[in-house]
Amino acid sequence: MRDVAVLGVGMTRFGIHPGKGVKELGVEAVWNAIQDAGIEPKAIETAYCGYAVSGLLTGQESGVGQLALKDLGITGISVTHVENACSSSACAFREAWISVASGLCEVALAMGVEKMTSATTQRAIKALISSSDVELEWGIIFPGVFAMIAQRHMHEYGTTREQLAKVAVKAHRYGAMNPHAHFQKETSLMEVLNSPMIASPLRLFDCCPISDGGAAAILTTKEFASKCGKHPIQVAASVLKSGLYTDERPITSFESTIKAAKEAYESAAIGPEDVDFAEVHDCFTIAEIVHVEDLGFCKKGEGGRFIENGEADLNGRTPVNASGGLKAKGHPVGATGVGQIVELVWQLRGQAGKRQISGAKVGLAHCMGGFFHADGASLAVHILKR
Amino acid sequence: MRDVAVLGVGMTRFGIHPGKGVKELGVEAVWNAIQDAGIEPKAIETAYCGYAVSGLLTGQESGVGQLALKDLGITGISVTHVENACSSSACAFREAWISVASGLCEVALAMGVEKMTSATTQRAIKALISSSDVELEWGIIFPGVFAMIAQRHMHEYGTTREQLAKVAVKAHRYGAMNPHAHFQKETSLMEVLNSPMIASPLRLFDCCPISDGGAAAILTTKEFASKCGKHPIQVAASVLKSGLYTDERPITSFESTIKAAKEAYESAAIGPEDVDFAEVHDCFTIAEIVHVEDLGFCKKGEGGRFIENGEADLNGRTPVNASGGLKAKGHPVGATGVGQIVELVWQLRGQAGKRQISGAKVGLAHCMGGFFHADGASLAVHILKR
Repeated sequence: MRDVAVLGVGMTRFGIHPGKGVKELGVEAVWNAIQDAGIEPKAIETAYCGYAVSGLLTGQESGVGQLALKDLGITGISVTHVENACSSSACAFREAWISVASGLCEVALAMGVEKMTSATTQRAIKALISSSDVELEWGIIFPGVFAMIAQRHMHEYGTTREQLAKVAVKAHRYGAMNPHAHFQKETSLMEVLNSPMIASPLRLFDCCPISDGGAAAILTTKEFASKCGKHPIQVAASVLKSGLYTDERPITSFESTIKAAKEAYESAAIGPEDVDFAEVHDCFTIAEIVHVEDLGFCKKGEGGRFIENGEADLNGRTPVNASGGLKAKGHPVGATGVGQIVELVWQLRGQAGKRQISGAKVGLAHCMGGFFHADGASLAVHILKR
Repeated sequence: MRDVAVLGVGMTRFGIHPGKGVKELGVEAVWNAIQDAGIEPKAIETAYCGYAVSGLLTGQESGVGQLALKDLGITGISVTHVENACSSSACAFREAWISVASGLCEVALAMGVEKMTSATTQRAIKALISSSDVELEWGIIFPGVFAMIAQRHMHEYGTTREQLAKVAVKAHRYGAMNPHAHFQKETSLMEVLNSPMIASPLRLFDCCPISDGGAAAILTTKEFASKCGKHPIQVAASVLKSGLYTDERPITSFESTIKAAKEAYESAAIGPEDVDFAEVHDCFTIAEIVHVEDLGFCKKGEGGRFIENGEADLNGRTPVNASGGLKAKGHPVGATGVGQIVELVWQLRGQAGKRQISGAKVGLAHCMGGFFHADGASLAVHILKR
């Protein structure tokens, strides 16, 4: 398989976009990526478009990619939609990577879009359900699932309520530095701890928001990138794993993350200690704590202290979610995966503005889609290198 | 890229399956394919699952592949959902093909599932809409679109109402020979011509049914197939094209089919005259007439006569839809594409029973997903060889 690089990236601001549908969000993100790559729209040979719940929420299930690309004059190419819940566009990015790596094409587009704020919160949460015939009947929706994980993590490892809150405070601090973030306002420990209870111990400020948004990345070969006179960002690893789904393992870690990360580190020939920064799937504050452990940034059970000690801060050992993460940057489900890639590329190029991580050479993106039987349903890990 | 072969196939009967959801339909199809391939379930390294409207119709949007595979003990692999309207699983098959061809894995699963009959017909048709903000408002749903195509084709080329009806009669004749078909009962010219009007000139019997179903195929390398002691069926071409979407071309042909077929023929180093039989996307009777022209089986405008003269019959020049096609075999949207592949493999192996095409060596599958501005949104053409 051939080496693959990211030539250009673009995104909309994540947030509330009244009057913009999935198509408009897609057009804006893709156009930004095309301009960033400095290519003609016609150079794109194949496209993968991730979205998850817009069909249920807006009635527009099919053709989102074609409709968006048509408006940019890109027709007659192959366009494929990828749906893997919250990791939909991480998986679209992976398919684009396979497509270029295989030799099938030279230039591939990965995009992700989601329109969620036009529906009620209740409908949006219902659309995000994992297994409609089980979880929906039992009422085990995501805040409940992660609340149970948090309870167990606190019991098992002594993780504190304040440590959870510090994940949110950090997220908002960096979101305030990110002009593409949904929330660009700092928050305080007291504000998080006094926010309304959602599912104990998780409060409103422990939960990521429901957002609209689009994100896009253009992948190509090193050779094509050189021809464009660009210094591309290398895709050093792309791994996707579903879970083991056994009922006999602790709910305080995700086997799918551990397996995907292991394979990604092997593929990139590095270890977790070589990762300069990471974007991880912090749909809830407890999720970031679990993920930094499962990704090997700290030992099992030490995630809370990792956050508390500032090791995930911009100037910490392994900065995590410098973009604001799902928690503050926002979580337009189908756009989140490519949105993480966009942040990785900006950081690796030194274009991340106030939130720039100095000397960042290796970045990791971790995106989790769905959840059954105490494990992620589709767990994507990407490692990008300068 | 490496040569890829189909090692095993399986499907459920297409039709009405009360009490079976997308998961159960998937389990049945995949298990049949695994048994047919003669491999251990654990041999599958990656899976692509196509479905289109089950999310809108059942509320189960995500995780269908993972849930079905978990029940077969297949966990921890990469599972990706592909959604491209009616060509969803044709595109899943294509991704599985790329995955093996790229060298990323040795054994890949392509599956398609759809559960449609639990919803009302009205909801199912609404879910199939192409562009919700345009077609739905204008009322231009698929029967209306294909009625306009039929009107124009009749005006332009003298295609007759009886020729349209003969597509349906042929479909039901072969459906009656196919134990996996939704409709296994013959029909007559008079029955078609007297069936209720849907959108003039299309009557009820010109339209494919709304079905439930699942289909699966296992792809691998020639080398792995040899190790299994199997004579595999070769994937000679896999092409996907979106349309041109210009308003300035005739609605009596699909540019996407013409372009995809051309590229597929070049890739397989054959011409349309070398195709021994085909499964084409006959969502309406007029569609089969247009497609046999666009695929080059006859000249433009002669599709009606091609059918009338029996050239698409089992013993004709190019047998078309020996399975009964979408019209009689059924159209569980997301399962249709792999369902066509299953028929191709059975025919190429000589396992098609009463409807066997003698000496079939080269088969073509044509699957169309979505429709905007007088062209297909995702048009997949596969050529398989014995």
